[in-house]
Amino acid sequence: MNIEIISIGDELLIGQVVNTNASFMAQELNKVGLNVNRITTIADDAQEIESSVLAALNNSDCVLITGGLGPTKDDITKYTLAKLFDSKMIENKDVLENIRNIFNHRNYVLTPTNRRQAQVPEKCKVIENLVGTAPGMCFEKDNKLIVSMPGVPFEMKEMMTKHVIPILLSHYKPSAIFHKTIITQGVGESFLSDMIEEFELALPKYIKLAYLPAPNMLRLRLSARGENQKSIKQELDTQVNKLMPLIEDYFIGFDEGDLSLLLAKLLLEKGKTLATAESCTGGNIAHCITINAGSSNYFKGSVIAYSNETKINVLGVDEEAIKTNGAVSEEVAKQMAIGALKKMKTDYAIATTGIAGPTGGSEEKPIGTVWIAIANNKGKCIASKHNFFSSRENFINRTTNECFAMLIRLIK
Amino acid sequence: MNIEIISIGDELLIGQVVNTNASFMAQELNKVGLNVNRITTIADDAQEIESSVLAALNNSDCVLITGGLGPTKDDITKYTLAKLFDSKMIENKDVLENIRNIFNHRNYVLTPTNRRQAQVPEKCKVIENLVGTAPGMCFEKDNKLIVSMPGVPFEMKEMMTKHVIPILLSHYKPSAIFHKTIITQGVGESFLSDMIEEFELALPKYIKLAYLPAPNMLRLRLSARGENQKSIKQELDTQVNKLMPLIEDYFIGFDEGDLSLLLAKLLLEKGKTLATAESCTGGNIAHCITINAGSSNYFKGSVIAYSNETKINVLGVDEEAIKTNGAVSEEVAKQMAIGALKKMKTDYAIATTGIAGPTGGSEEKPIGTVWIAIANNKGKCIASKHNFFSSRENFINRTTNECFAMLIRLIK
Repeated sequence: MNIEIISIGDELLIGQVVNTNASFMAQELNKVGLNVNRITTIADDAQEIESSVLAALNNSDCVLITGGLGPTKDDITKYTLAKLFDSKMIENKDVLENIRNIFNHRNYVLTPTNRRQAQVPEKCKVIENLVGTAPGMCFEKDNKLIVSMPGVPFEMKEMMTKHVIPILLSHYKPSAIFHKTIITQGVGESFLSDMIEEFELALPKYIKLAYLPAPNMLRLRLSARGENQKSIKQELDTQVNKLMPLIEDYFIGFDEGDLSLLLAKLLLEKGKTLATAESCTGGNIAHCITINAGSSNYFKGSVIAYSNETKINVLGVDEEAIKTNGAVSEEVAKQMAIGALKKMKTDYAIATTGIAGPTGGSEEKPIGTVWIAIANNKGKCIASKHNFFSSRENFINRTTNECFAMLIRLIK
Repeated sequence: MNIEIISIGDELLIGQVVNTNASFMAQELNKVGLNVNRITTIADDAQEIESSVLAALNNSDCVLITGGLGPTKDDITKYTLAKLFDSKMIENKDVLENIRNIFNHRNYVLTPTNRRQAQVPEKCKVIENLVGTAPGMCFEKDNKLIVSMPGVPFEMKEMMTKHVIPILLSHYKPSAIFHKTIITQGVGESFLSDMIEEFELALPKYIKLAYLPAPNMLRLRLSARGENQKSIKQELDTQVNKLMPLIEDYFIGFDEGDLSLLLAKLLLEKGKTLATAESCTGGNIAHCITINAGSSNYFKGSVIAYSNETKINVLGVDEEAIKTNGAVSEEVAKQMAIGALKKMKTDYAIATTGIAGPTGGSEEKPIGTVWIAIANNKGKCIASKHNFFSSRENFINRTTNECFAMLIRLIK
């Protein structure tokens, strides 16, 4: 059973909007064991829509369409689908009432343009949209479902999770699926793949292994699928237990999320607090921590010391230490971490100092060099040196994840 | 002349990764006047790759492929293309040397798996990848180009801008295109669109207007395209001059980039320095500044004061001021800005304090409330209050852009 997603919108083809809709839909479908075999992005163009839907019906068992349902002239999806499924347009009372409610709520006057949104093809089953004015539509042809949803992300998300997924599950009745995600860190994809080659080749056919790389971190996801829920779940556990000893040097946690969330969980569990002192990461560590709701429960703050004066004046780094060792050195990294720990009175502090590039390297300290230090409130301070030579952005992301991993390993 | 983008990767079809590659490519192609008519996302599956490339060659004049070039077994793009274009695999010396360099640099041992990345189809033109181990490949068939690039975003970006775009321009010679991008701030898309409706309707056919919204900022891009370079360029200027008076209240600059780059340019021009003191933005302002190469020339650092103690101990905010007004207040925002300015001895300092959500709001200070203050070294300090109620991430991004806009307006 395969699903094709068709994303409609000129804005997607000029790169103005990133297609987050398709990835959200794919994620939700994957969770419940429904397989997406293709995502196609096309323009708001009747001929393109028609030929793409027909091609998708040819290749797949289900077609999910987003976009082109707005009130303006360039939104033509529903008229095109009406024509394709040989259906006339009728005004739907429930949809009209929903539109009226939304307009009343916003104190807007209902114009004829907006009222047109209550028109739907007679042959479709209307899917309600309580957070917007464009209804969803579900067609059926040769036992295949064709669903059209709005392209506005929060409208699509609401409709997808509340209505479309249940419709698909009851129509297609997919087999059960279970996932287990293992986060590894400090090993490249190709090395890990070599290490677990035998394991991978010996996996039963109904268990799939996916490599999900991120900067300086690699998730492995095992997904088991089948009719007998109990036995596939058991087999998934067996395989995870077989895998663990092979990767134990790099294993850092089980999670669907990223390292900042893994660290957050640990800090909260242990009731510990954190501060950071960032030079080369420029605030990215603090940003990755504080993007998570509730981070003020364990994160006290950071000093972004982007100049030597700030290192000296705000973090209390010794001027001589910078003169003697340079700003990118073990000594300065450690002093930064200890300074942050003391200033912000936390249990742990992370510090980074390095050369992000694209300029500023030397023979002794090439671009990509970074010192990371972690201090705790028991007087201990460790440091490690790395080279994450790459683009500036990637350097920052890799350093950030290295910091999270170091601290996770230290406290878990 | 139409281009189809084919994104290959199982991770895209399970929604694990958002397809930012396709939007980046579409954006870059659009800038130089090359049109994308379809984006197709498929699995790492030989049959899918083969049929999709053939279908794309049927519909389009050029096919750009990303993904499936890694060293692991599931990466099969290059072998599939070799078969499709009837070409045997050979080891390319330059590619091997590049791989060796990268491995030496990282102190890794070259394994046979990694060495396989130096294998390329004999019939392709190799495109160098200096930031990664997988080379790009360019095939030609019936005067149509088929280009295969790595799926790792920073490798693709580097290859796309440095090599692929120039190759496409010299092969397809598209008609000239000129853009003018106008950044507005402080106005929503639908309001601005109503304000300039007449202007938009009166535009000549060969000039297109695109709305490029970002959190709390909106770029308008006028693109003129045609054979007579001089006359279309002139007409573009005429239209920009017509547009400017209509939007002057919200105009903030001409630029392709974002507000952090606009601010960077201004600070460098005027030889001024900046520090930040962030509470609710949690380091995002510093991160957005320091992601830009050369930012250490004007940015001295930041204090992320994610707790009251940090506000008091590191920034020198008066404890009484917090008790009397609350941490989210004009007084505290101003003291934070002045504290950062003094500690880091800069010409300007920006401070933020607010409630990002999803919890922490009150009737008086609901979620989304934020105070922004800007201090300068002449003793002046201004502040403004906003409500950016939204998701946590969007709140942070909108606040960040509001800060940049406020400072740009202040110093330009």
